[in-house]
Amino acid sequence: MADQHAGPDPDTRPPAPPALRWAEPPEGPVVIVVDQTRLPAEETELVCTDVPALVRAVQALAVRGAPLLGLAGAYGVALAAARRHDVEEAAARLAGARPTAVNLGYGVRRALAAHRAAAGKGATPQEAAGAALAEARRLHREDAEASAAMAARGLALLDELLPGGSHRILTHCNTGALVSGGEGTAFAVALAAHRAGRLRRLWVDETRPLLQGARLTAYEAARNGLPHTLLTDNAAGSLFAAGEVDAVLVGADRIAADGSVANKVGTYPLAVLARYHHVPFVVVAPVSTIDTGTPDGPSIEIEQRPGSEVTQLTAPTGAVGGTPVAPLGTQAYNPAFDVTPPELVTALVTEAGVVSPATAGGIAELCARSCRVTIS
Amino acid sequence: MADQHAGPDPDTRPPAPPALRWAEPPEGPVVIVVDQTRLPAEETELVCTDVPALVRAVQALAVRGAPLLGLAGAYGVALAAARRHDVEEAAARLAGARPTAVNLGYGVRRALAAHRAAAGKGATPQEAAGAALAEARRLHREDAEASAAMAARGLALLDELLPGGSHRILTHCNTGALVSGGEGTAFAVALAAHRAGRLRRLWVDETRPLLQGARLTAYEAARNGLPHTLLTDNAAGSLFAAGEVDAVLVGADRIAADGSVANKVGTYPLAVLARYHHVPFVVVAPVSTIDTGTPDGPSIEIEQRPGSEVTQLTAPTGAVGGTPVAPLGTQAYNPAFDVTPPELVTALVTEAGVVSPATAGGIAELCARSCRVTIS
Repeated sequence: MADQHAGPDPDTRPPAPPALRWAEPPEGPVVIVVDQTRLPAEETELVCTDVPALVRAVQALAVRGAPLLGLAGAYGVALAAARRHDVEEAAARLAGARPTAVNLGYGVRRALAAHRAAAGKGATPQEAAGAALAEARRLHREDAEASAAMAARGLALLDELLPGGSHRILTHCNTGALVSGGEGTAFAVALAAHRAGRLRRLWVDETRPLLQGARLTAYEAARNGLPHTLLTDNAAGSLFAAGEVDAVLVGADRIAADGSVANKVGTYPLAVLARYHHVPFVVVAPVSTIDTGTPDGPSIEIEQRPGSEVTQLTAPTGAVGGTPVAPLGTQAYNPAFDVTPPELVTALVTEAGVVSPATAGGIAELCARSCRVTIS
Repeated sequence: MADQHAGPDPDTRPPAPPALRWAEPPEGPVVIVVDQTRLPAEETELVCTDVPALVRAVQALAVRGAPLLGLAGAYGVALAAARRHDVEEAAARLAGARPTAVNLGYGVRRALAAHRAAAGKGATPQEAAGAALAEARRLHREDAEASAAMAARGLALLDELLPGGSHRILTHCNTGALVSGGEGTAFAVALAAHRAGRLRRLWVDETRPLLQGARLTAYEAARNGLPHTLLTDNAAGSLFAAGEVDAVLVGADRIAADGSVANKVGTYPLAVLARYHHVPFVVVAPVSTIDTGTPDGPSIEIEQRPGSEVTQLTAPTGAVGGTPVAPLGTQAYNPAFDVTPPELVTALVTEAGVVSPATAGGIAELCARSCRVTIS
């Protein structure tokens, strides 16, 4: 089943636009993001001229994914500063746009601290804005470097866990270049395996309700020529039972100090299935996703999204509203994320090292070693 | 979370049309089915004037659900006989319309055997057709009686397993009156619990890709006034983790002699989650769903359906084709069913008794006791 079709040829279209970029005058200062709600039907960019526009893009999931939200937060602060808006207020609005992904607040704090430091040293508003932008750009570079490091460490781990070398990887949601300044987190590992000739198949969970797997991961897999197959989230059980999954690779939106992992809803059931079938369950995320201020899983705030995402089908055309599928008035339970406890995590792959098993001690040691820039 | 909303008032529309009915001349002879692909948007009936039309309705899932497929098979044979078509050929076409649900072939065999027996005794074609129809009607009555018996036995089992009496039930796919000559299988148990004042909430898995939970179970729950909440299949894990599920109730399309249960894809992951969380996992199905000729799970043929059901979103409007969500050309894995091994089944509830645990011996004893009409 897994290898009945060869991988598609790599996409021959022009390179995809970066998921997020900064533009200087005359076009800017603006933050330009790919509108991910319209992919794969359209490669459209949204030009955010101020922080409220960027916050709307974040809340509508036009820009999404933990590392990229960090960049959005940092560039957003830089944008407010460049436009001489109230930087502190802008930072607060950005940081509160979505509650679960820790990176958003982290990016905001990084740029805000740079801005404050410059202002505190008597810099002009223009110089302080420059400092915020420089910090956003630094974070951007760090993120790209972290992607590359995670990909290398993740592939080494796969090769260690699966000596056969022909990996069939199941992934959930979207974790590629669309969520990162680099090539992403979990997807970057699958991409590295593919480039090394060791990816037999990428199984792509469609990821209801917003179908980030079907829309975005399948798009990135096709663009990069990975052999891939899409499935409904609930069909993953059949693949495990048939012995068709060698490892699960997922990203993370927030990792608590005890190793609990908040990630897109549907991740936890995969972790339980993986454990039941003795399949490695690997989380790939930058150190900035680890939130030592959150002690454990139950302390992670889970964003509850509108029930209409479940009761209506929305095609990726950017249209507002969707087609009802459930009877009108049907109530829906729609958490955006779930929490996987550390005992189900085989390994946590970061740019600074691999923690396996994912214990509080191992995570604390990693954080101490990685010289993370911490700004409260 | 579970009880923040009261149950909706029972639906005040006229009673829903029966899922399947026979009509005599002048309208018939015809088999009339509710077109389940158009629910809940429209309550439309399909009039099948011959077996090819009925086979198309079965394959398009306009008529679906294991017990109802048995009725479709039996009435289909009666229809071919009444119209003086080739009954043997019609029976073969009907039996082969979908491979996994055992009841389809069972219903076909029941009516065909009655037809053959009458013809073998020198009956006229009209008399033989009458015998086939009488057998279909007998199966219909048996199915309604089986529903009532399963509901009573299932409720008694729930009360035994969950002495608290305020049940929060998770279900998958659709198992109510739309799949049965009576009130269904798993849904009938939830309905009985509701009528007895002991259903706190019915959690309804949407059941991708064809959304039978969102479209059909939410519709039946609303029509019957059950407190219910819809969720994406992958959000069930969060409910288990939060302790919000007291029991899982599902139907079955085929139960092998060893107790392996083929049911709608997504059932097996629920069984694994239920086991991991020490929650009872209960299968509700008539004895006719047990196929003693299939020794075990791997012997069950699983229907693979078109990938377009996953790569395109189709709203319940009866429209042909859908809106692409994945990039064009994306390959999809789309098994219609999965298999849950007997060790994950807490109990099998049938009209003839409850088997718990679901062992080969217990099932053989139940089949011996239930005086099932077996026709090879």
